[in-house]
Amino acid sequence: MKKVIIVGGGFAGLNAAKGLGNKKNIEVTLIDSRNHHLFQPLLYQVAMAGLSPADIAMPIREILKKFKNVRVLQGNVESLKLAERTIVTDFGEKSYDYLILACGAKHTYFSHSEWEVFAPGLKTIEQATEIRRRVLTAFEKAERENDPLDQKKHLTFVIVGGGPTGVELAGAIGEMSRFTIAKEFRNIDPKLTKVILIEAGPRILPSFTEASSSQATRDLEKLGVQVWTSSPVTQVDDRGVAVGEERINAATVLWAAGVKASHLNNYLGLKLDQSGRVPVRGDMCLHQFPEVFVCGDQASVTMEGSDEPLPGLAPVALQQGRYVARQVIREVQGKPRENFKYHNKGQMATIGRSRAVAEMGKFRFSGFLAWMTWLLVHIYYLTGFKNRLFVVIQWAWAYISFDRGARLIVDKEWRFYAD
Amino acid sequence: MKKVIIVGGGFAGLNAAKGLGNKKNIEVTLIDSRNHHLFQPLLYQVAMAGLSPADIAMPIREILKKFKNVRVLQGNVESLKLAERTIVTDFGEKSYDYLILACGAKHTYFSHSEWEVFAPGLKTIEQATEIRRRVLTAFEKAERENDPLDQKKHLTFVIVGGGPTGVELAGAIGEMSRFTIAKEFRNIDPKLTKVILIEAGPRILPSFTEASSSQATRDLEKLGVQVWTSSPVTQVDDRGVAVGEERINAATVLWAAGVKASHLNNYLGLKLDQSGRVPVRGDMCLHQFPEVFVCGDQASVTMEGSDEPLPGLAPVALQQGRYVARQVIREVQGKPRENFKYHNKGQMATIGRSRAVAEMGKFRFSGFLAWMTWLLVHIYYLTGFKNRLFVVIQWAWAYISFDRGARLIVDKEWRFYAD
Repeated sequence: MKKVIIVGGGFAGLNAAKGLGNKKNIEVTLIDSRNHHLFQPLLYQVAMAGLSPADIAMPIREILKKFKNVRVLQGNVESLKLAERTIVTDFGEKSYDYLILACGAKHTYFSHSEWEVFAPGLKTIEQATEIRRRVLTAFEKAERENDPLDQKKHLTFVIVGGGPTGVELAGAIGEMSRFTIAKEFRNIDPKLTKVILIEAGPRILPSFTEASSSQATRDLEKLGVQVWTSSPVTQVDDRGVAVGEERINAATVLWAAGVKASHLNNYLGLKLDQSGRVPVRGDMCLHQFPEVFVCGDQASVTMEGSDEPLPGLAPVALQQGRYVARQVIREVQGKPRENFKYHNKGQMATIGRSRAVAEMGKFRFSGFLAWMTWLLVHIYYLTGFKNRLFVVIQWAWAYISFDRGARLIVDKEWRFYAD
Repeated sequence: MKKVIIVGGGFAGLNAAKGLGNKKNIEVTLIDSRNHHLFQPLLYQVAMAGLSPADIAMPIREILKKFKNVRVLQGNVESLKLAERTIVTDFGEKSYDYLILACGAKHTYFSHSEWEVFAPGLKTIEQATEIRRRVLTAFEKAERENDPLDQKKHLTFVIVGGGPTGVELAGAIGEMSRFTIAKEFRNIDPKLTKVILIEAGPRILPSFTEASSSQATRDLEKLGVQVWTSSPVTQVDDRGVAVGEERINAATVLWAAGVKASHLNNYLGLKLDQSGRVPVRGDMCLHQFPEVFVCGDQASVTMEGSDEPLPGLAPVALQQGRYVARQVIREVQGKPRENFKYHNKGQMATIGRSRAVAEMGKFRFSGFLAWMTWLLVHIYYLTGFKNRLFVVIQWAWAYISFDRGARLIVDKEWRFYAD
């Protein structure tokens, strides 16, 4: 019986567990600090009050319950002892025959961690509800404010980072203020809302073609979003952001500008890349420890014929997770390993209702067709029949009513209420 | 133009605002510390992972958007200056011609507020998700625990208070451990779960008849819930609870034992009752200040022919809110006030799936029929077509699949994740 430990229940870890599920002579323990698998591509919709957290998060043990050889434990992995084939958790040490590390990435502020309090990122359910709280509270404060300068500050939203998440957040805030909120306020004209998307590089969506990038900029501008490119942010504080000499007063700043791989990579004894990712062999394992696989956002994998490592996208992690499971099974069966091959499924970003940009191989399209494709692809990949059904209904409702289903301001902390 | 200020967007305040909506010569400002109206009768289902917060909470300004004379402000009312017809909020003072106080109640620990940290109550969305976190985390900890005594402690759940909320919580935990969780754990037998409902008085559901009370006890016992009556809790701490000499070791203790009306009652200059409620005239206003109405859980109203004040139930608050709106309109039109009359719609409590007890006038029924009635009544009163639709779908799903839709452990506090 070979003991496999999987750390992380994201796309990579979950698919590795599924691949190893109910396989002979293999015993799997999946450890995650959360009880749920999070469908991160739709997390921005929770932040924008379109979906509820439970719509895109599912208990890992529920997803894996049919695999009798898989055990799920909620806990933190604190460090790794690769030489002893042991991991250290907050509930004791665990030994393994194979270790699959799939802990993903969190956002980074490029040595300015003091900015986080003013500009939350978007990687967890808590952060999504915090962003939702800040955005909705800004409108509430603007409504009760009589000073026009303060009102203007409350109605200014800055999103730092022009990747897909930044574009999706900016588009959603633009749309929210134009359509959803407009009818419900008496003291403000929500159309006064200013949404500014700031990107350090020369264009937004840098991983897309220039044509898609221009299309996305135009689509955002139609929603009233101002796009600032070649604008590296130099300061974030309680007044707003600075871009060199320029200053924007904004009550709400959101961060979508950079990610860094899990801190567990520091225990691997290897030089990490700029984003903290660890270089792995062609079969996704460590050079010195072939029984240790690293996949998803935690690994840096460069395919033959390319200079760039694979991007931190769900399809990459999903394929790597499945691939690693197959290699473990092959080895247990006495077969040699194969090399990982990535099947590029393309990339997409959505901009408010009815608009998106998509690139699949040589095909590039935008507008309603791209948006419908985006919808179908995300529904298809979403885990669990119930979640799919609920998201479809909420989207249909939102499309017809211009309403957002989950406009709930929940307190950041759990307060005591009794005397 | 008469200025009406309503404090509180619960059943009483919301229905007062609806009653005054689009009425001539009346200008309404509704102030609530939250942006949402909460359908509290279903809050226990959020705590028990059956529904998502957004399913039972709706933005107040969305509900009232069609009333052009109603303005909604999110903010805290800090004190009252009745002689000056002014309220003091955290965004300044506001004057009124009519004031409608409908701030409800929070739970109380009978001079033991230090118990709250060990035994959260259930009045807000935050508390519901905190209870959900504790209950689900207890199962997670039991799964990774090897010491049988610690495991037993994690699997012991104590609910203090045998009113409808306590009964509903106990039934739901019993059911959750029997059906939903059983298949997904490897290291524990979730049937080992011990659920204890503790009531200080001689029987649970004291506001119901003795027959209903006995029926509910039998139904709870079928779900494995142990009912302890005549058992006043004397201590709550991190080990569990004490009832006199007896001790129960429990990792999870929930509080459903008592409520106290809003602290704003302290500004009314009147002697309050045991639950902090203020006595009002037959027309729901203060004796000295007929322009100040108090309704819902904040007021103590005794109908003719009864010794007991009206209970803190949604139908009472709803009828009082509507009634007060009518009186303001009458007075603005120069008509005299009428007295408040309460139409008793009965009471209900549900116990797990397919079981409930209900009393309506002389009719008393239980079992599946009562449960169906409970479902229909709650769906009928739930605000908003979308919320109704979603709750119906989730209930149907849960009924078929024995699954709970929102088994999500969300952190208590928003943590910082960046370096």
